[in-house]
Amino acid sequence: MKIVLLGSGNVATHLGQALKQAGNEILQVWSRKAVNANALASILRATAVERLSDIDRAADLYVISVSDDAIKEVAGLLTLENQLLIHTSGSVGIGALAGASNNIGVIYPVQTFSKVKAVSFDTIPLAVEGNSVEVQERLTKLALTISPRILQLNSEGRRSLHVAAVFACNFSNHLYTLAKKILNDNQLDFDLIRPLIAETAEKVQQFEPDQVQTGPAKRSDLQTLEAHLALLKNQPQLLELYDKLSRSIIDHYKAF
Amino acid sequence: MKIVLLGSGNVATHLGQALKQAGNEILQVWSRKAVNANALASILRATAVERLSDIDRAADLYVISVSDDAIKEVAGLLTLENQLLIHTSGSVGIGALAGASNNIGVIYPVQTFSKVKAVSFDTIPLAVEGNSVEVQERLTKLALTISPRILQLNSEGRRSLHVAAVFACNFSNHLYTLAKKILNDNQLDFDLIRPLIAETAEKVQQFEPDQVQTGPAKRSDLQTLEAHLALLKNQPQLLELYDKLSRSIIDHYKAF
Repeated sequence: MKIVLLGSGNVATHLGQALKQAGNEILQVWSRKAVNANALASILRATAVERLSDIDRAADLYVISVSDDAIKEVAGLLTLENQLLIHTSGSVGIGALAGASNNIGVIYPVQTFSKVKAVSFDTIPLAVEGNSVEVQERLTKLALTISPRILQLNSEGRRSLHVAAVFACNFSNHLYTLAKKILNDNQLDFDLIRPLIAETAEKVQQFEPDQVQTGPAKRSDLQTLEAHLALLKNQPQLLELYDKLSRSIIDHYKAF
Repeated sequence: MKIVLLGSGNVATHLGQALKQAGNEILQVWSRKAVNANALASILRATAVERLSDIDRAADLYVISVSDDAIKEVAGLLTLENQLLIHTSGSVGIGALAGASNNIGVIYPVQTFSKVKAVSFDTIPLAVEGNSVEVQERLTKLALTISPRILQLNSEGRRSLHVAAVFACNFSNHLYTLAKKILNDNQLDFDLIRPLIAETAEKVQQFEPDQVQTGPAKRSDLQTLEAHLALLKNQPQLLELYDKLSRSIIDHYKAF
């Protein structure tokens, strides 16, 4: 397929590369910021475009990978007819593209992307939605060229999947950051808990998370919970999160 | 060393095996529950003991790996003299062993252990404390037989390390559980986010967590945050955690 990529962030960067490696041609990369458009265009051997009016109308597929609140606006400025138009967001409904083309859809890769780290698409589930059976089939065929794990999901289901992903990924990573802060405040290095973080994620590749929960809250070890709360007493935000998360664990296992 | 193991839980099971593999002899395994003592004793080719009065007094090292609130009680029932006595808890001070022997200490493995999964000790940091230079040296020498990553840490430092571990491991795993609940409530499979969980942990093996934070809160994407909160409106505990964790992320990156 001949593809125009709208956006130059983390998802655009990684998805663009995966699409290119799968044999597609990336014609253009559009971004509001010329420096970003240029950087990604050069990786993808595409042309950088700063103005939406310079977008090539003869592509097969237009991929909008911009921040969620800008998708509708960017789509509204494109005046396509029957060309395939998709976005890549977990939480934005397919309706945000309505009117911008007759053939619209979504491909949402269930993964976290940072520019600093390469990632293989082989194991990434891709949630696909189209506004017609034909669009759905074309998008599925395209998605299969970059990953074997495709699921058909409407906008509502995709949003639930995204919320789950936020808990499992974004919030977990933030907990790593809070742990790092606690360590550094005590002249300890984050490196000390890297094997622990790796093992915690590794465990749930084979097992269910509620099967391998450990720690003082799981054991309802009130003495340790109180000692930890005392240690965090001067850091109200950490204290509150410690308390709420521990209560959530206690409640969860009490219920079983 | 000749070792008596007091406890039969996750830490006792894995540490006992590592100590045995390193060439030490596990003489006895004590547990309040005979069935647990028997199970671990048979793995370690040791004798199972149900009564503390049957403990062999001629061992070199006594390892207490019981729940935090039981450590002091178990130690109090041992009447050792100069034999090495340690516990393995992150949050309990060395003082819990005071009076039970003249030579007391701690070896705290910074890892999460579940009986269902084997784990290699090679990369696990071991925090070591002793009540004298001599004890510290003997424990360090022993610890080095199972891992090259030893750090000397007093009880206060160890407790901070443990709190950090709770955030990074226990709380993250609980977030995986909450994510699974959200998925299952929407007829989606936990397997969909396993690659995401793996990548999130994998990223911070090379990078710092605050360098690779992603998601709507990091982008201050209020539209998506509100859509997610609306989706969780009938689940107050999930709603509250989503809100608190998102605010913590927003505050963290605002400050920089």
